[in-house]
Amino acid sequence: MSNHEMSDKPEHVHAEPGQPRTIVFVAYPQMGLLDLTGAQTVFFAANRGLVERGLPGYALHTASMEGGPVATAEGLVVETRRLSEFAHGPIDTVIVPGSPHIRQVIADNVPLIEWLRATSTSARRTASVCSGTFLLAQAGLLNGLRVATHWVMADLFEQLFPLIELDREAIFVQQQSVWTSAGISAGIDLALALVEADCGREMAMQVARRMVVYYRRPDNQDQWSPLLQSQYPTSA
Amino acid sequence: MSNHEMSDKPEHVHAEPGQPRTIVFVAYPQMGLLDLTGAQTVFFAANRGLVERGLPGYALHTASMEGGPVATAEGLVVETRRLSEFAHGPIDTVIVPGSPHIRQVIADNVPLIEWLRATSTSARRTASVCSGTFLLAQAGLLNGLRVATHWVMADLFEQLFPLIELDREAIFVQQQSVWTSAGISAGIDLALALVEADCGREMAMQVARRMVVYYRRPDNQDQWSPLLQSQYPTSA
Repeated sequence: MSNHEMSDKPEHVHAEPGQPRTIVFVAYPQMGLLDLTGAQTVFFAANRGLVERGLPGYALHTASMEGGPVATAEGLVVETRRLSEFAHGPIDTVIVPGSPHIRQVIADNVPLIEWLRATSTSARRTASVCSGTFLLAQAGLLNGLRVATHWVMADLFEQLFPLIELDREAIFVQQQSVWTSAGISAGIDLALALVEADCGREMAMQVARRMVVYYRRPDNQDQWSPLLQSQYPTSA
Repeated sequence: MSNHEMSDKPEHVHAEPGQPRTIVFVAYPQMGLLDLTGAQTVFFAANRGLVERGLPGYALHTASMEGGPVATAEGLVVETRRLSEFAHGPIDTVIVPGSPHIRQVIADNVPLIEWLRATSTSARRTASVCSGTFLLAQAGLLNGLRVATHWVMADLFEQLFPLIELDREAIFVQQQSVWTSAGISAGIDLALALVEADCGREMAMQVARRMVVYYRRPDNQDQWSPLLQSQYPTSA
């Protein structure tokens, strides 16, 4: 059984009934700030809607190999837990942000890539934002799959990973238990799609409205299409 | 002379020639994560373009009253400097994020509101994202001005600040040296507008493309309009 058939696993392996789903955002030096915080804000907004309905929400964690403060590429420093803290608990979703310095990041983060490879076998799903796709590729999780990444880095991706099929038009791509997405704000689309998969379309639309982001484009629509089409819900 | 005529001041008061412009993002507990990081990412992306042209960019700082770690509403903890560190240097732009708990934030942050009132007399411009507008209002900086804020909080704003004109349709509003914006992702629009004011339209468009955000809507367009219209630049 490959790493990519994990979505067949029964759901209770990843979250006990009535318990929140654990989402781990993987942090490392020089990561892209908005890759992390855009997706994180989607799950936070979903939590508000889920709590209102008396449903268990998401437990959001930001964690790095060493723990402690991690400087983003933009300069903002964020506090992190240690990834090893999540070794024994059920991880529902691993989300990996990208970096504008992804080549150097790959060279500097061998233990992190090893952690991704190991954890993908137990997490229900693994997702990347922007050039985070490079880290999943380097971990060997994308072989034989179709993926998305930031358009600026598309040529580099194909050069480094010639055996992986890059879809240059996609906002995000789901293949089995692996989700990858295009640049920066596409991480918001990706997170909305994950919320839809978990909680249904109505919840995803409510979150999008709360964030002033129009409900996500279909993933087979090309990247010229509108992402944000309204500031108000249409019922306002 | 009111606080709102500061944009008439000569520019060299706020940044020596050849020196970067100092942007201070004001942090406080329970602030909205994306309010902070969306705008910050715009200036970071602008810096890359400015450096490529050999121009001075922006010096980005995140600072709070006490300094040290500050927890956002979403849970992510960010490191901050102390606002008092910027008492004597020239601040170009102060940017104030909002919070989903803005009423409590106003009650809990009297010294911060006092700092905003005092600093607005020396900073070249003061800006708010989302419900950050409430903090500027509480500091007395918006009297007689037209402003924007998050649509979810519009009724509360008018109830608390009946003498301030709220424009419910605006993505952002500039009035003299004060810029206010609507919910969350509108902070990205606002920051793009500030970059355009400083560096011209071409730079703002380059930044928007890098962020996969379509170039900002005109500020007189209502909030139903597209924010993101393309993933690629039209020349791609």
